[in-house]
Amino acid sequence: MANSNRKSDEETTFAAVPKAVVSRLSLYLRELQQLLSEGKETVRSGELGSRLGFTDAQVRKDLTYFGQFGYPGIGYRTDELVQAIRQILGTDIEWRVVIVGIGNLGRALLGYKGFASQGFQIVAAVDADPKKAGLKVEGVEVHPIEQLGKIVKRCRARLGMVAVPAAAAQNVVDQLVEAGVEGIVNFAPMTINLPEHVSHVGVDLASELEQITFAVAKRWHAQQQS
Amino acid sequence: MANSNRKSDEETTFAAVPKAVVSRLSLYLRELQQLLSEGKETVRSGELGSRLGFTDAQVRKDLTYFGQFGYPGIGYRTDELVQAIRQILGTDIEWRVVIVGIGNLGRALLGYKGFASQGFQIVAAVDADPKKAGLKVEGVEVHPIEQLGKIVKRCRARLGMVAVPAAAAQNVVDQLVEAGVEGIVNFAPMTINLPEHVSHVGVDLASELEQITFAVAKRWHAQQQS
Repeated sequence: MANSNRKSDEETTFAAVPKAVVSRLSLYLRELQQLLSEGKETVRSGELGSRLGFTDAQVRKDLTYFGQFGYPGIGYRTDELVQAIRQILGTDIEWRVVIVGIGNLGRALLGYKGFASQGFQIVAAVDADPKKAGLKVEGVEVHPIEQLGKIVKRCRARLGMVAVPAAAAQNVVDQLVEAGVEGIVNFAPMTINLPEHVSHVGVDLASELEQITFAVAKRWHAQQQS
Repeated sequence: MANSNRKSDEETTFAAVPKAVVSRLSLYLRELQQLLSEGKETVRSGELGSRLGFTDAQVRKDLTYFGQFGYPGIGYRTDELVQAIRQILGTDIEWRVVIVGIGNLGRALLGYKGFASQGFQIVAAVDADPKKAGLKVEGVEVHPIEQLGKIVKRCRARLGMVAVPAAAAQNVVDQLVEAGVEGIVNFAPMTINLPEHVSHVGVDLASELEQITFAVAKRWHAQQQS
């Protein structure tokens, strides 16, 4: 009963998949990996959802974008769904990452345990401060910024994480694009310009707080009315 | 021509506003603040959108959740829309924040310039390492973890940022909730349990990378088919 097929390649351009669904895929993946480490071989959409605060309908609807993964009367096979989601997210292969900017944030990124476990290998670090060149931080060598392009190519880095001050960010991004990276995570609190063929996520830490204040304000409004 | 009224309180529970809209509000706000600093007094939805890679229809649709803000033939008044979005996001008042965990990530958060400019004031830091107690990091005093509850109350912190190892996160979160914080940003790569009245955002740095690998994989699929 091959009930757990992904849709064929013709159907998997994923062009119409909302960003929120992709974010939830990451959450499902983490929870499934947790379940796997607890020895749970199967899980139902209701249980997976309730562990994350979603309904079972939400879980099923999200996964439907990519194929059919459940087995009637059983639910999902944990390891199978982990593999399927990694394939969908493109993390069934290892991604080599370069970090630019080795201040506190860069160091935090180099020490972040959640990258390696998800298939992201930080292969090099780069900083504009010549005094940092040659240092090893969390086992990764720091190179001078002048060598950024060369390092990206030599290490075959496909992704770049930019943790430099806002004023330096666009220049670093341009160099990363020139060197051929395919995606960039920008932590500088500013909008950067990129060619269309390079994917990009901006991590705006204040916006995470704003999501919370919005929710608090919303609750407050609701209380005023009840 | 009072065309820029927010909906009345009866209509502003915002219960049905999708999370993605709230995220985009943060982006609009940053861009509007940038426009304001460039001296631009008005902006059209098309220009605001194109600076962020959205259509004008998207901008207008997002704002419609909260009222009507534009003036016919003019567009939005920049400072007015900045004020309105801050009010919607709840950041027209100042929020006092405590940071727990002063490792590299905690230090990065303490030094992050984007918080203060958006109305978030970091009033205290807490760490489990007794050697860090009494230190000043970025002008903020570090307190021992045993005093967490007392510090939250004394500093009237309403939000907590948790930058401790995964194994310690739930315990810290419980203490923050006990002390009365209204919202928590969790940076530990794990799911935490919270009572319903406390808002929560988990910042999973690997999931930011996964959004990019998903986009790269999507492009790759599309190319195979063309």
